[in-house]
Amino acid sequence: MMHTYSSMNQAALRAEYDSLLRAFAAAKAKGLSLNMARGKPSALQLDKVSDILTVLKDDGDYCSDGIDVRNYGNLSGLPCAKDYWADVLGCRPEETFVGGASSLTLMYDVISKAYTHGLLTSQQPWCREEKIKFLCPAPGYDRHFRITQSFGAELITIPMRFDGPDMDAVERCVQDPAVKGIWCVPKYSNPQGIVYSDETIARLAALKPAAPDFVIMWDNAYCVHEFDGEFEPFLDIISLCRENGNPHMVWEFASTSKITFPGSGISVMASSQENISYMEKLMGVQMISFDKVNQLRHVRYLKDKEHTLAIMQRHAAVLAPKFRTVLDILSREIAPCGFASWNSPRGGYFISLDTMPGTAKRALALCKQAGVILTDAGATYPYGMDPQDSNIRIAPSFPPIEELEQAMEVFCICLKIAACEKLLDQ
Amino acid sequence: MMHTYSSMNQAALRAEYDSLLRAFAAAKAKGLSLNMARGKPSALQLDKVSDILTVLKDDGDYCSDGIDVRNYGNLSGLPCAKDYWADVLGCRPEETFVGGASSLTLMYDVISKAYTHGLLTSQQPWCREEKIKFLCPAPGYDRHFRITQSFGAELITIPMRFDGPDMDAVERCVQDPAVKGIWCVPKYSNPQGIVYSDETIARLAALKPAAPDFVIMWDNAYCVHEFDGEFEPFLDIISLCRENGNPHMVWEFASTSKITFPGSGISVMASSQENISYMEKLMGVQMISFDKVNQLRHVRYLKDKEHTLAIMQRHAAVLAPKFRTVLDILSREIAPCGFASWNSPRGGYFISLDTMPGTAKRALALCKQAGVILTDAGATYPYGMDPQDSNIRIAPSFPPIEELEQAMEVFCICLKIAACEKLLDQ
Repeated sequence: MMHTYSSMNQAALRAEYDSLLRAFAAAKAKGLSLNMARGKPSALQLDKVSDILTVLKDDGDYCSDGIDVRNYGNLSGLPCAKDYWADVLGCRPEETFVGGASSLTLMYDVISKAYTHGLLTSQQPWCREEKIKFLCPAPGYDRHFRITQSFGAELITIPMRFDGPDMDAVERCVQDPAVKGIWCVPKYSNPQGIVYSDETIARLAALKPAAPDFVIMWDNAYCVHEFDGEFEPFLDIISLCRENGNPHMVWEFASTSKITFPGSGISVMASSQENISYMEKLMGVQMISFDKVNQLRHVRYLKDKEHTLAIMQRHAAVLAPKFRTVLDILSREIAPCGFASWNSPRGGYFISLDTMPGTAKRALALCKQAGVILTDAGATYPYGMDPQDSNIRIAPSFPPIEELEQAMEVFCICLKIAACEKLLDQ
Repeated sequence: MMHTYSSMNQAALRAEYDSLLRAFAAAKAKGLSLNMARGKPSALQLDKVSDILTVLKDDGDYCSDGIDVRNYGNLSGLPCAKDYWADVLGCRPEETFVGGASSLTLMYDVISKAYTHGLLTSQQPWCREEKIKFLCPAPGYDRHFRITQSFGAELITIPMRFDGPDMDAVERCVQDPAVKGIWCVPKYSNPQGIVYSDETIARLAALKPAAPDFVIMWDNAYCVHEFDGEFEPFLDIISLCRENGNPHMVWEFASTSKITFPGSGISVMASSQENISYMEKLMGVQMISFDKVNQLRHVRYLKDKEHTLAIMQRHAAVLAPKFRTVLDILSREIAPCGFASWNSPRGGYFISLDTMPGTAKRALALCKQAGVILTDAGATYPYGMDPQDSNIRIAPSFPPIEELEQAMEVFCICLKIAACEKLLDQ
């Protein structure tokens, strides 16, 4: 029978530690090379959507709404691609700008142009401001934080609650005119899988920031990405902001990277029509048009929201058992020890685990020694620094189940070793 | 028998003018809607390469050098895509960064990052400099000029000679440390179709600019784009700069936009390995990877430089008669009048015409009234201002030949009307 670590005396802990070290040595001897670092779909998932590559075949396939998609033109996207994204996101087609293979690039474009040219609502480009700050709900997505960091913004950590960012903290922070925006993943947040509550969303849409060009970066990356249970509808943040007198405050993003192929899909940014026109003018300097062949290929393949949700079931069938595997092993190996907690998401790509404070870095260093790679400890916090050294992001999607099992066994041993060391030190 | 306009007396000119006005009224009555404004391939050209869309079919097609191209990774491009571009450009694979559908976007990225973060050779980001200036050989490509203009650079016009930019002027200008770079289209320059001479290229590679981060923006857009005669080999600007002690001074660009589909192809930027590593770090903030499925699709289809040149013959077969049509009509209608001159390029997408100074704008305004659209007069000069009001860019590629003939008839009438008006005014 297991005891929680906190209830063990030093002798029992020492015995546990010795036994863990033996298990670790055995694991290490296997010479594993396993990766749970990134939210990458597995090859099996990609196989299930590879028929997208043959949807365009004949000459007639290159025409959409009278447009020859093989030629220049339609900077903000094919009409049918705008219709598609409006259907998925619940906004209007004229509020969308359909891009290339990466929504991250569109997010970067918005921040980069805010910095060099200013947004529609800016008094001056951000590079002319003495100081800019950006709100980063954490744990969050490292690539978001890095974009604003790369432009010299001071990153302010906002605690995450079960229903989204701590809105009291957000409302307080936006009174500072140097605070220019906030990063949000409203559905199945990266990494905690949190779905923002309607109340959180309502408070975000109703913010009255001191900065006239405060921007909500609304990365709806997992908008249709349930792997367990029914589709969860979500509010249209664009109308909500408009209704609250903040028509230009939000930019919403999404892509097909985890619907079809990562890095080879289509992306979208959505905002007020005025924002889209403004951005179109700036984007027109850097390109003539995005890959409309791929836009048409995707629209023909995904059709609409309903059909997309049906396709997402193919991914769910592969993903759900992987998440279950991780959660089962955590329940069996870690839950009885009582020093860690984690979420059980219904969608998205991650499990977020909070281990004993002060041990996350050590646990992942041990994992690495045994050939198991996870996202760096701290990566989910601004500047890569988790003040508690506690949060770990697990990405179960890429490895096959057998590898996932092996990797999780090693991971659990390492978590426990790090916890033992901490307690034995005390 | 025709006389040159300059040799006609006022009465003869008046008679000519009246006859032209009648011809113009007749043309206008046809209600034409014709476009020679942009370097767009015609649908017929696109048909000839549309088999590219079906080269990827089976599961085995998604693997290249052991990489599943459908997934994230390989930010700077697939190894086979790097090999392809190195073959086409005559540089080394490790000197290439293979991008998405637009080389213009890669050019923008270089300038944008110079502005926000600085180049490898910069002492500080350009946005921190009091003033920056950029050299614009003109007539040139309006979209180049607009990129640097959009970042607040002062655009300095460099006269174009028959063998490239006036190098005496360039060498003089680069002594100013505020001068940060130069735009170049070294082969079949836009719009004059000029091929830079070896001497011009050698002098460019040997520049000793005052600014340590001076950059040659080498847009090799038409590197394999002969439509008349044999492939014209070109020098590898990257080795040349290296040999001249300027290893990081040049960024070369190219794309398949006029090889396969405009806006749906693949692009490349090439420079020193150190520059590529530096840029990779900055690009890594804005994206995970470019569309590798499309990279593989293109490499499978285009294979190598030799096969690409063979494919370019399909385009040549469509383009050559169109250029001939334009040149024939100009020879017949305009040459005898003696007030204009133009080039006869062997490749590229444009014919550049210099009409009587002070009449280009008027001629194109007349064209517009008669339903014929050309690139705005002045567009080939910085700030869209041609000091002579003389240069006109003709893009013969898009319209079918019959429309091209109609459009050229109208164009010639309008050129002549504007010239007559000028002479009658005197």
